[in-house]
Amino acid sequence: MPETIPVTLEEAIRLHPADLADRLQRLEPPQARALLKRLPKNCAASALAEVELDRLPELLSGFDPARLADWLPCLPPADAADLLQHLSAAARRNTLAALPPEQAGNLRALLAYPEDTAGGAMSNRFIALREDMTVEQVHGLLRERALEQRADDITYLYVTDAAQRLVGIVSLRDLVFRRPERRIEEIMARDVKSVRADTDQEELARQFEHYHYLGLPVLDAERRLVGVVKASDALEIARKEATEDMQLMVGLSGEEHALTPWRKSVGRRLPWLYINLATAFAAAAVVNLFEGAIARWTALAVFLPIIAGQGGNAGMQTLTVIIRDLALGELSPGEGRKALLKETMLGLINGLAIGLVVGVIGYLWKGSAALGLVAGAAMLLNQLAAALSGVVIPLGLRLLRVDPALASSIFLTTVTDVAGFFFFLGLATLALRLATP
Amino acid sequence: MPETIPVTLEEAIRLHPADLADRLQRLEPPQARALLKRLPKNCAASALAEVELDRLPELLSGFDPARLADWLPCLPPADAADLLQHLSAAARRNTLAALPPEQAGNLRALLAYPEDTAGGAMSNRFIALREDMTVEQVHGLLRERALEQRADDITYLYVTDAAQRLVGIVSLRDLVFRRPERRIEEIMARDVKSVRADTDQEELARQFEHYHYLGLPVLDAERRLVGVVKASDALEIARKEATEDMQLMVGLSGEEHALTPWRKSVGRRLPWLYINLATAFAAAAVVNLFEGAIARWTALAVFLPIIAGQGGNAGMQTLTVIIRDLALGELSPGEGRKALLKETMLGLINGLAIGLVVGVIGYLWKGSAALGLVAGAAMLLNQLAAALSGVVIPLGLRLLRVDPALASSIFLTTVTDVAGFFFFLGLATLALRLATP
Repeated sequence: MPETIPVTLEEAIRLHPADLADRLQRLEPPQARALLKRLPKNCAASALAEVELDRLPELLSGFDPARLADWLPCLPPADAADLLQHLSAAARRNTLAALPPEQAGNLRALLAYPEDTAGGAMSNRFIALREDMTVEQVHGLLRERALEQRADDITYLYVTDAAQRLVGIVSLRDLVFRRPERRIEEIMARDVKSVRADTDQEELARQFEHYHYLGLPVLDAERRLVGVVKASDALEIARKEATEDMQLMVGLSGEEHALTPWRKSVGRRLPWLYINLATAFAAAAVVNLFEGAIARWTALAVFLPIIAGQGGNAGMQTLTVIIRDLALGELSPGEGRKALLKETMLGLINGLAIGLVVGVIGYLWKGSAALGLVAGAAMLLNQLAAALSGVVIPLGLRLLRVDPALASSIFLTTVTDVAGFFFFLGLATLALRLATP
Repeated sequence: MPETIPVTLEEAIRLHPADLADRLQRLEPPQARALLKRLPKNCAASALAEVELDRLPELLSGFDPARLADWLPCLPPADAADLLQHLSAAARRNTLAALPPEQAGNLRALLAYPEDTAGGAMSNRFIALREDMTVEQVHGLLRERALEQRADDITYLYVTDAAQRLVGIVSLRDLVFRRPERRIEEIMARDVKSVRADTDQEELARQFEHYHYLGLPVLDAERRLVGVVKASDALEIARKEATEDMQLMVGLSGEEHALTPWRKSVGRRLPWLYINLATAFAAAAVVNLFEGAIARWTALAVFLPIIAGQGGNAGMQTLTVIIRDLALGELSPGEGRKALLKETMLGLINGLAIGLVVGVIGYLWKGSAALGLVAGAAMLLNQLAAALSGVVIPLGLRLLRVDPALASSIFLTTVTDVAGFFFFLGLATLALRLATP
């Protein structure tokens, strides 16, 4: 990563667009805008394509539609559509109006797909062939296109019928190998994997990893070829989805980075902290129920952090495994019961192993066999509660059609705190009753 | 994901290797081995290449070296090397001895690279050209190679000098476009991005995402071309690294899945739970210090879960953002101070916002202004401690050259519990002293 030093125009032009985008994001927005204005349009556009999407609105505010319309044609269409999506509705309309009609139409077609679907991730710049072309004709076509097209890496060419429906695929490698007089229909593969434009992008990334695709054609509802997604797009999606899942788990909405301005972060974090506070009061209410027992036996208070800490950690282990497997498609819906059985087994074993240690230490530290027994038993029960909720919470969220990661660590610690305190203080109350008939 | 139903030989042969691997992993190992034995060797080998690496030893135990040596040549060399790496040392030696000498030598070369480096992820099957070849000669070469080589997707060809040093790159697309009489040195790009074989695979995935590579050449210490990494490999690495980071954070060593057998999971989770237990006892010891105060004022015990819960959640928010940015290379080493400043600001604001609510509720619930004041102030201080430790712990682990994610949530909750209880119970003790002169 480059250091955050002002960059001269000459340096900026020599940088890789991805590195230039890094610099732009590290500058104060007015400085970044000033630099953008002075850059050659190709250079500015390709750097904008690499800027984090949530930084675009700030960076682009203040540029007039004519300037934006000047940049857009330099971009791969998917990036141009992303950029438009992050303008205000008025700026988007004006910019599209300032573009040549054909380009504007193209972009409007892409804008119609939600951002988190295959349609939102695809490029609609691809080369489609007809079955009856010869290898030689295709070579000619590619030579022609080389002049008008950007140096996008092409690995596959797609074969469509008269109705634009996908019928086959030819790898560029095949084209090089085959004799010029061969016809495309003789050399194309007919069994083509594809995705629907409305496929969720998480599912898309899963398929790329599972099948090692370099590119995947995207079809509309009528099975017409409308675009292509590349492996590098899938990599970006997989990274973003993983970040999102990690952050959602702990209660962070939207993608946040270490250097996201604190004003934005407050709005993303504080609401979840308040929700966590409400759940913490629920746990406190359980302790409050047993205030009488604590008044008689203050050593109980000393063990509260141990009950809460162990339940939370064990539950987080289970939760993390389940959420990640759901995201990667490694756990099919029918396998929830299997996972639950395994985690129950683990909860039992870990519960016994930890309960025993806590019980013995409790006895040695506080000199009370009753405290040792109560703490050990509560620990066993709490480990079981942690294991169960680590499976049930994400699967439940999924049944509700919410992201299984959503604030799940907050819900989980609520269960482990409430259940743990209830077991521990409830058993302690019983012990107190037995001790004082 | 397919359901976990026994699969017939005919079905198995028709499945995509990645799907067949899924089935194999869902069968009991003896059934899976029986199926593998009956499969055609190409089919068995390509499915084995898709099996999770940590499942390989179990699946392959019991096959003799001759059978393994029969499968290996059907695999891309990187996968064959992975497979060998997961055999016992004796089985590996015997299998290599059963292979033709050239293939064995090739695989030994790959085995020399650690698994988590570019060398471990690369394939050493690539096509190298010389500068003085013509486009037509290269076409001829590719046609020849088409017969002997597997249908790996090729996007780039690499140009090397007499000493095997990389001097240029030609995209397959360029080859199709250019006239047959052009020489490679005229059309190749000389500014080739590459990685060293010892590059960490996390860094490798970062570069793929940052620069959208489809493939990246790998050089040894003498800058000789030794292999190629593809975008689909980088996607797999990125997925694995994200899983590892999420799991390391909560104390899970090794990649665990929902259906990993519980016997394995116990060994991965229980040691961390014991470490967490030790830290929980540290927090308990702090509470123990103040047992006298709690005996006089039991309402204090009721607020312990709130202090711990809020500190833990806020700290996890910070920690997750920092760890993810470190993994993605979004936070450069020089920017730690900036991140610390931002988080301190957030800790202050969130601390005031939450401290106020906790203070008011504490006063209303327990009717004690002193309790409200103490709880509110402790909350503010604890939010600050959470913010600081969320930045300092991962950066500190990194300075120690350990993965910044390693058990970081365990360390973090130790800090927030210990600091939180100390602030809260310490302030309460002060309040008690002031109240009873």
